[in-house]
Parts: sequence; structure tokens; C-alpha cells
Amino acid sequence: MLVVHKYGGTSVGTPERIRRVAERVISYRRKGADMIVVVSAMSGETDRLLGLAGSLARLPDERESDVLVSTGEQVTSALLAITLKDLGCDAVSLLASQIRIVTDSAHGKARIAEIEKERMLSALEKGQIVVVPGFQGIDGGGNITTLGRGGSDTTAVAIAAALGADLCEIYTDVDGVYTADPNITEKARRLDRISYEEMLEMASLGAKVLQIRSVELARKYNVPLLVKSSFIEGRGTLVSEEVPTMEQVVVAGITYNKNEAKITVSGVPDRPGVASKIFTPLADANIVVDMIVQNVSHEGHTDMTFTTAKVDAKKAYRLMEKVAFELGAKLVAVDEDIAKISMVGSGMRSHSGIATKMFTILCDEGINIEMISTSEIKISCVIKEKYGELAVRALHAGFGLDAEEVVEEK
Amino acid sequence: MLVVHKYGGTSVGTPERIRRVAERVISYRRKGADMIVVVSAMSGETDRLLGLAGSLARLPDERESDVLVSTGEQVTSALLAITLKDLGCDAVSLLASQIRIVTDSAHGKARIAEIEKERMLSALEKGQIVVVPGFQGIDGGGNITTLGRGGSDTTAVAIAAALGADLCEIYTDVDGVYTADPNITEKARRLDRISYEEMLEMASLGAKVLQIRSVELARKYNVPLLVKSSFIEGRGTLVSEEVPTMEQVVVAGITYNKNEAKITVSGVPDRPGVASKIFTPLADANIVVDMIVQNVSHEGHTDMTFTTAKVDAKKAYRLMEKVAFELGAKLVAVDEDIAKISMVGSGMRSHSGIATKMFTILCDEGINIEMISTSEIKISCVIKEKYGELAVRALHAGFGLDAEEVVEEK
Repeated sequence: MLVVHKYGGTSVGTPERIRRVAERVISYRRKGADMIVVVSAMSGETDRLLGLAGSLARLPDERESDVLVSTGEQVTSALLAITLKDLGCDAVSLLASQIRIVTDSAHGKARIAEIEKERMLSALEKGQIVVVPGFQGIDGGGNITTLGRGGSDTTAVAIAAALGADLCEIYTDVDGVYTADPNITEKARRLDRISYEEMLEMASLGAKVLQIRSVELARKYNVPLLVKSSFIEGRGTLVSEEVPTMEQVVVAGITYNKNEAKITVSGVPDRPGVASKIFTPLADANIVVDMIVQNVSHEGHTDMTFTTAKVDAKKAYRLMEKVAFELGAKLVAVDEDIAKISMVGSGMRSHSGIATKMFTILCDEGINIEMISTSEIKISCVIKEKYGELAVRALHAGFGLDAEEVVEEK
Repeated sequence: MLVVHKYGGTSVGTPERIRRVAERVISYRRKGADMIVVVSAMSGETDRLLGLAGSLARLPDERESDVLVSTGEQVTSALLAITLKDLGCDAVSLLASQIRIVTDSAHGKARIAEIEKERMLSALEKGQIVVVPGFQGIDGGGNITTLGRGGSDTTAVAIAAALGADLCEIYTDVDGVYTADPNITEKARRLDRISYEEMLEMASLGAKVLQIRSVELARKYNVPLLVKSSFIEGRGTLVSEEVPTMEQVVVAGITYNKNEAKITVSGVPDRPGVASKIFTPLADANIVVDMIVQNVSHEGHTDMTFTTAKVDAKKAYRLMEKVAFELGAKLVAVDEDIAKISMVGSGMRSHSGIATKMFTILCDEGINIEMISTSEIKISCVIKEKYGELAVRALHAGFGLDAEEVVEEK
């Protein structure tokens, strides 16, 4: 039995919490499991380091920023190994350069290419608990790289995949994945299980429990993920392949995102190449576009609407003004006053009428739908921001997701 | 022209100071020198990290402590490289694992075995300034090691030796090596030059400007060291081989140490093996013994007196009580109320009468000498602690070391 644990920044945020993590790890070890523990930087540390860099350069060199911020996880890994050994449990910290977590050279957002197993396996054979700093790698030239914010999840899953671990437990500050944001509806329920696909849609839509890349990796190598809280006992949420019993659940969860803005280019002459002309400048400016809706053509003209992060909206608007002029479009409009509500569920594949039911529930609440976009296991609607929380609660109740009893305050 | 610079913890203690270091390095680079810069951790950082470890374990594991504290220098090296690049100067940080500063496996006090030149040379050829975190190494197994407090000096000298640098400049918070502690005599003068041998005696006697191992290494590979201040302009002190002009200087400096205690074992039967019996238990207990004086034998008995650090005095006293009982010695006494005054100078080799003059000056001040120990270029006297500063000032004046004008306040 080989288990990978991953502890996030708040879980290792103080020496006391690091000690609690050590005790938890040892309790697993005592049950006979071989253990690899992946740790994040202590909460606040990465920002502290980036703050130092920011006080010295407006755009700190990316290679050197990785050398800098990777120390945060190194510190935690050493402290956890020190604590484990102090508690009488043999342990060893192994850095990305020592176990050769080889990535590409995209500093700050590197992707893992391969991990050497030998060094970790020989430590496990000696009975040692292996502590690995998350988030970091090395490229082919031996330079330090980092995997992007939340990259420690990816480190944990990649190691679990490389070693064929039985389970990868992700410890964080929430006790699992919920059917909706408990801050919006107190009737939100913790899910016992969720499929990789559902989790991917949930994560990309704003349920920020797991880094999306780690879920993709877990799906690719079929690594079961168990999301649990470091602070309260509980069964957590298992993220795994779809299993037959899941099919009865039509909707797994409802997510809510109010950090997007909607941009509409109206009266675009409808001819080949228009979409490319609109979206190429956005991609060149590194603006991520989420939903895209193109309406049917009227008299040779069409409307193109898309959403971006609110922080990018002004920049996108200016780019679109230029594009609209070149294309001969009529109007560009930006609307920051929106919320995106999405329902996710593998059951949608085999159930008809889900979308209709969603639209009816929103209609019954008097909520107008401004944009609709669907995929195999997801329906997203853009509505006025002020109706966002109402919509989540109405859909949560309407699709029978409400907990029978109110989740107790913790 | 290849120059190695080393900046200590206070020289890189804040972002503003790191920027000042970067500007200084660039001004050297602009004069055409190839540059390697070795940096310490920002002042206070090593203690902060050790404090974290200390809050988690009484005796933190040594291997893991090295993983922990080596991050301090890594952070500074990345920040300096970021600053250099921001100021338009190509630079790259290279960790001990990347340039393979290979040491033995004595964690916390490792010694450098070899340094690979290739990676540094290829960076220099590209016109890059190479920034190296001091204090750290890797052992044959790729584990992180550290060289002990002040080890960054050793890193700088070892790199200068490996690459055959023309000069190694050590930037610190004093502007050079002085003839005595300026806090004790305001007439202390900065020395323009001092030989390796003199510096070794000065360093081991309490002039804590340079880590003693770095001076040994510099002597072995004949690396000229220039000790300068990061904060004020000045010529500094050149530490190098003895040159003929130096011979006129009889006494280079006077040092003063009040952190030792004197322990006397009286009435020891004078037979072979006694010294071994006395000092073996001290060595086993890791107590460093400094001066040792054995008086001539009287009626088959002798007195053995030695000095240790004050913090070790009680432990040493208890060990000696046991040894004295076994040896049949009469008495063990400890005296913490002492100061050790030493005069250092290569000129002592060829000048007679220095010791006599020293004793006369002390006598004229009414200072009793309790212990005397001499080497080729050093004379040390133990006196009552309360006379320590008086002795330094009297000797400084008596040997003509006083500055003609009082050194100005800075």
C-alpha cells in the first residue's frame, strides 16, 4: 500500500500545524502504508518572497523568480522531515532536483515531463517517509522551474502516477467538494464521490479546491484523489473514474462565477475568418476567453459575444474596438455586471430535459438569461450579477441537491 | 581579469542594500572584469529558519537542517540576480548543486572537496555575472550540506581558487582589519596589508572579520583577499602572502578575548600519559581547548593549566574533577575572570625582545601575567579581565601602533 499525501499552505502555516501534519502522517504510517508527503510553502511565504522580488524589479526575471519562490516549499519539506524524525519516524526530504522531477523550461508554469522513481523507491525500501516540496521541478539544463500557483497538487498527483500509488490524499482547508458554495447556500452538501470529468468542470468554473492540471493528470493516469480537510475529521470527497452508481446523480454541483465580464461585438459582417480576426488579438495579448457565443446571421451580419476575466475586460474592449473598425462591425459593448451559473453532472449525458428544467427554474424566479453555453456534462448561463446567489439557491433546491438537514456550523 | 566578490548578511540585509550591492557589482563589471558574486543569507534569516526548526525539535536532524538553512542564501542569490537583470546586466544564479560544490557529508560543518568549473566558465563566457549562494554544498550523494557559520567566505575563496581569480573581495560591515578593536582603543589603525599567517592568528584570536577556514584556503591557493566595507568607501585591507616591505612591521595587531575561562589542575603526578588523560575527556565532550601551559615539575608533581570557552568551563571543570581523582591530583580550580591579550606579527620571527617588551609594558601598568603562551608570530598573555582594555591600549601605544590622528567617527 503506497499513499501520497499533499498538504496545502494553510495546513502547514505554523509550526504547530506542521506538527499536526506530522502526527497524521505517522498515524497512517503506523497502519503500514508507505508514505510520500508533498508539501506547499507555509501560507503567506510565497507572497512574501514575491514581494521581495517586486521591491527590486518591476518584472522580476522568470528563471530567478523560480529559484526564489521554490525555497518556500523547500523550507516546509525540511521542517516536516525534522518533525517526523523528532517524533521517532525515519524521514527524508527530497527536492525536485534530487528526485529529478523534470519539466519543460516554461518558468512559472512548467509542465512535468518525467519523474525518476529510483531515489524515492530506495528511500521507501529503507522504511523512510519521503517528504517532497511541491510546486518545483528542474528543466533539462538543471534550472529550477515552478509549476504555477497550486502546482503542489500536480506534484502530488504526478508522483502518485509515477509510482502507481493506491491513493493520493489532498489535504486542504475545506473538507471536500460541495454541490455549491456553502457561503451562498447553507444547504450545500459535501459530495462523497465525483468523477474526474465533473471535477474538471467544477474546478474550471470556480470551485477552487484542486488545481485543474492535477485533476487532468489524475484522470490520465487514473489516480484516485481524496480531498480532505487538515483541520476537521471527515470522509472527504473521492475524485475518481465514473462508476455505475454515479449515474443516478444527474447534477453533481452548481458553480457560480462573478469574476467575468461579457463583451459583445455587434453587426459583424458574417464571412469566413471573422472569428479568427476577433480572437487572435486576444490570444496574442494573453487574454483568456471563456464562453463564446455566436448568434445566427441576420441579413449577412452576426453578433459575437464572449466572456473574459473582469481584470482583462478593459484591455479586451480596446482590442475589440480596433478589430470592429477593421471588420466594419457596428458596435462593441462591455458588461461587467454579470454572473455565470453552471450546472455540472455526468448524468446529463443520458438525461434529457436538464437544460429546459434549468431555464424554467430561472424563469420562475424572474431571472433573464443573457447567454447560454453547453457541453456534454455542463450547462452555463450568464445572468445579471445581482441574481447570481438567488439562481444558485433556486437551482440547488430545484434539482434536489439540498441537504436534508442544514450542514452544521463548524 | 576575474574578480570574486562576497557580500555578508548585513550587506544584503534589505532590498535597498541588495540594490546597492547590484550597483557596485555593475560598476566593477563595466570596468571589464568577469564577476562571480557570492552572497550570504539576509541578516537574521538563518536565525529565523533555525528558530522554526527549534520550535519543532530539540535537536533538529542535521541533514534536514542543512536543507532548511541553505534556502537563506538561495533567496539572496535569486534576489541579486533579479536586481542585476533589472538594471540591464545579464546575470544568473547558480546553486551549489548546479555548479557542484562537492563537500564531505559532515552536515553543518562540511568541507569542500572540489568545485566544477565548467558551468561557471560557460556563464562567464556568455558575459553573465554569476551569483552563487554561499555556505552551501552537496555531498557525493547529492544531499545538501552547509559549511558552518561564516561559510560564505569559504565558498568565495574556494571558487576564486578553483577559477584562478585575480582577487577575492570580501564585503562586510567593517572597512578592514584593524591593529586592535576600535571599541577598545580609538587609536586603532586600519592595516593596508596583512599576511595570511598574521590574519590566521588574528582571526582565531577574536578579530572576527573572516572565517578562519577561508583564510587557510586563501593561503593554500594564494588567493589575494581584500576585506572592505559595503557601506563606506575605502581601500580596505589586503590579505596576501608576506612581502618584503611587511618585514618592517613587527606587530600587526593586538587582539583581546574575554570569552575564555582558565582551568588549573594542580599537583598532578608527573608521569607519561598524564596530558592524554586530561585532554581526552575534553575532546570526547567536544570542548575546544585553546591555550595549554604545563609548568615544570616540582617533587614529581606538576600543574596543568588550560583555557576553554566560558560556556564550556563548568562542564570542563566537572570532567577535571573526575580526572583529578583518577590521577591523584590535588586540586582543580576554574577562573572565569580572565582576559587573553595577544600580539600578532610576522616580524616577530626576526625580531628579538618583543616578548620582553610586552611583559615590561604590562608590568609598568601594574598588570600581573597569569599565563604565557607563544608561537612563531604570536605572544598571548592571560591577565585579570578588568585589566584587559588597559592592556590593549598600553600595548598599542607601546609598540607604536597608535594612529597619528584619532580615527574619525563614521
